[in-house]
Amino acid sequence: MPMPPPAREGQPLWSVDTPALLIDLDAFEANLAAMASAARRFGLRLRPHAKTHKSPIIALKQIELGAVGVCCQKVSEAEVLAAGGVRDILVSNEVVSVSKLDRLACLARSCHVAVCIDDASTIGDLSAAAARHGVCLDVLIEIDVGGSRCGVAPGAPAVEIARAFADCGQLRFAGLHAYHGAAQHMRAPAERRAAIERAARLTKETVAALIAAGMSVPIVTGAGTGTFALEASSGVWNELQPGSYVFMDADYARNTPDPEASVPAFVQALFVYATVMSLPAPERAVVDAGLKALSTDSGLAEPWGLPGARYYRPSDEHGILELSGCATRLQLDDKVLLVPGHCDPTVNLHDWYVAVRGLHTPNARVEALWPVAARGAVF
Amino acid sequence: MPMPPPAREGQPLWSVDTPALLIDLDAFEANLAAMASAARRFGLRLRPHAKTHKSPIIALKQIELGAVGVCCQKVSEAEVLAAGGVRDILVSNEVVSVSKLDRLACLARSCHVAVCIDDASTIGDLSAAAARHGVCLDVLIEIDVGGSRCGVAPGAPAVEIARAFADCGQLRFAGLHAYHGAAQHMRAPAERRAAIERAARLTKETVAALIAAGMSVPIVTGAGTGTFALEASSGVWNELQPGSYVFMDADYARNTPDPEASVPAFVQALFVYATVMSLPAPERAVVDAGLKALSTDSGLAEPWGLPGARYYRPSDEHGILELSGCATRLQLDDKVLLVPGHCDPTVNLHDWYVAVRGLHTPNARVEALWPVAARGAVF
Repeated sequence: MPMPPPAREGQPLWSVDTPALLIDLDAFEANLAAMASAARRFGLRLRPHAKTHKSPIIALKQIELGAVGVCCQKVSEAEVLAAGGVRDILVSNEVVSVSKLDRLACLARSCHVAVCIDDASTIGDLSAAAARHGVCLDVLIEIDVGGSRCGVAPGAPAVEIARAFADCGQLRFAGLHAYHGAAQHMRAPAERRAAIERAARLTKETVAALIAAGMSVPIVTGAGTGTFALEASSGVWNELQPGSYVFMDADYARNTPDPEASVPAFVQALFVYATVMSLPAPERAVVDAGLKALSTDSGLAEPWGLPGARYYRPSDEHGILELSGCATRLQLDDKVLLVPGHCDPTVNLHDWYVAVRGLHTPNARVEALWPVAARGAVF
Repeated sequence: MPMPPPAREGQPLWSVDTPALLIDLDAFEANLAAMASAARRFGLRLRPHAKTHKSPIIALKQIELGAVGVCCQKVSEAEVLAAGGVRDILVSNEVVSVSKLDRLACLARSCHVAVCIDDASTIGDLSAAAARHGVCLDVLIEIDVGGSRCGVAPGAPAVEIARAFADCGQLRFAGLHAYHGAAQHMRAPAERRAAIERAARLTKETVAALIAAGMSVPIVTGAGTGTFALEASSGVWNELQPGSYVFMDADYARNTPDPEASVPAFVQALFVYATVMSLPAPERAVVDAGLKALSTDSGLAEPWGLPGARYYRPSDEHGILELSGCATRLQLDDKVLLVPGHCDPTVNLHDWYVAVRGLHTPNARVEALWPVAARGAVF
């Protein structure tokens, strides 16, 4: 039973039911255009990460602006994106279990599908699944360039995996997946630069080793919103995978911008709209958005346009606004905008985007309702 | 587009798609029976909190074992529970906004609905909504007994609210909602006892003040899984609202049990089933359950049955198992059971419960699939 949308098209913002996940359309469209233009300027392929938005509608907007396709992390996400009309999908992650590989190969019958591996022992199951469905899958080898999560070690171990499936007719070696997730959230530009310089060196060495072994490396893909200009200007990557730039969040806002990097200024485009539902004291307002409306893994949400206010101590269905340093006097049923701490897992809590035109104006209106179609697509 | 279930009835556990939200049916049924029996022993009404499980199927099982009805926190949750056959629902929370009050009053046409207030200024909208639908709503006054979240101050301020709607034909003063959320997670029994002793004193004084003002106080409701035996034996409350006892979680496991309280030993009944999808090093296994499958607000998940293993650094779709101190050697595609850090927001991430019989036996099988019907019902 999917939840009904919290708004109708054309409705004024103030009457939207809360909590609601809002997109500031003006900011969102500016972010989409800025990244498309940056990728063009760098002369690189843009393959935005759809794990952030989980929406075929948004993916198609990115593709319309020049993206070659999108990434996602899970087969179930790929299925939802394909059902929504996306024709080129990289599952930028390892996939194991015969049933999942079967679904992945089945999907490749109707759209272009690529997937990552980091262990030669998975090649058998993967090629068998491809054979069952009569498809050829593009396969990228994920190397660990500093994130210490998935990925085979760069250099010789990666070459060894590539050799192991060079002769397999069902799998085509498409290149390297070299993504440094942890670097995206390093606060200081110097830290991020050092992390990506090292990642670039490891990736470059691996490309050289693969070429020396007689293989070509068509794609080197990676990079995120926090570092993509560094990967882009390294000359090592030819495809960028940023995701969060469409929305941004309070955690990304804590990164110090890099004065040397030529990065567009992405603006906050995602908000949770909440209502003051209890006012036990003038300095304490309780809003109806807590842990089930806002993720807390990367820090708490931040009130927007309420200088001096602080959101704290969220519980399942409540958040508290500390107002002792805030000049605005809130009343019961007042609405507030909250900037999520982390956009991706916050989006995954909601069933609908309420896309608002003129969000920060008195005439703010709901322009569209978009389902978060791959919400809960974790498998 | 709701997600398809990750399993079929009768399927062996090992073949369930992951990540999946599992219920250990044996543990779950024992927890349900233990709380029902504890409430009977105390001679108190049991109204379990459905915000934990968000499932009418589970609510009806609780009612079958003697519960008078359930609580929930949101009107949308109440709507889902009522649609699933629950006939007595307390929204243990304040509700503002005319459209929400309208939905609440509409619901009261088909089942018994009660709601909380903590501000006299909301009485007008609430009684108008009730009048529009021709219903009489039970209203509880929420007092702040130490949680510092919602709730009017105990004593005279609560009496003032009760007086303000005493003459209103559409609203019936049903008693007090006195719940100390923060006390549930205090680690030391002495801390919990001190918190609930104070809450009991404040609640008792408020009841006395209401009676002195000529009102009767039919219901005094509150208490959670961490403290209910204290409220129950205080002689102040006559209705208990525990929620988490059905499942338990890693956070509740960190509470030191109270040797003086007569509390049943609830057992862990909720797990996230995950797959090892990358094994970059013998001491590091990456599983397919991260921030979108397990909430992290009350601490990280804990591996079950893997002594010495630690789950750490979850990202959106990944979690890492540190295995250097663990004797078990994991392989790709191996399955692991994870105990969620916090049950309520973890449940809210999933669309389906996979109810398993004999979970910790070699013959573990899927007995039932129950939708998390009110998942995402945050408004």
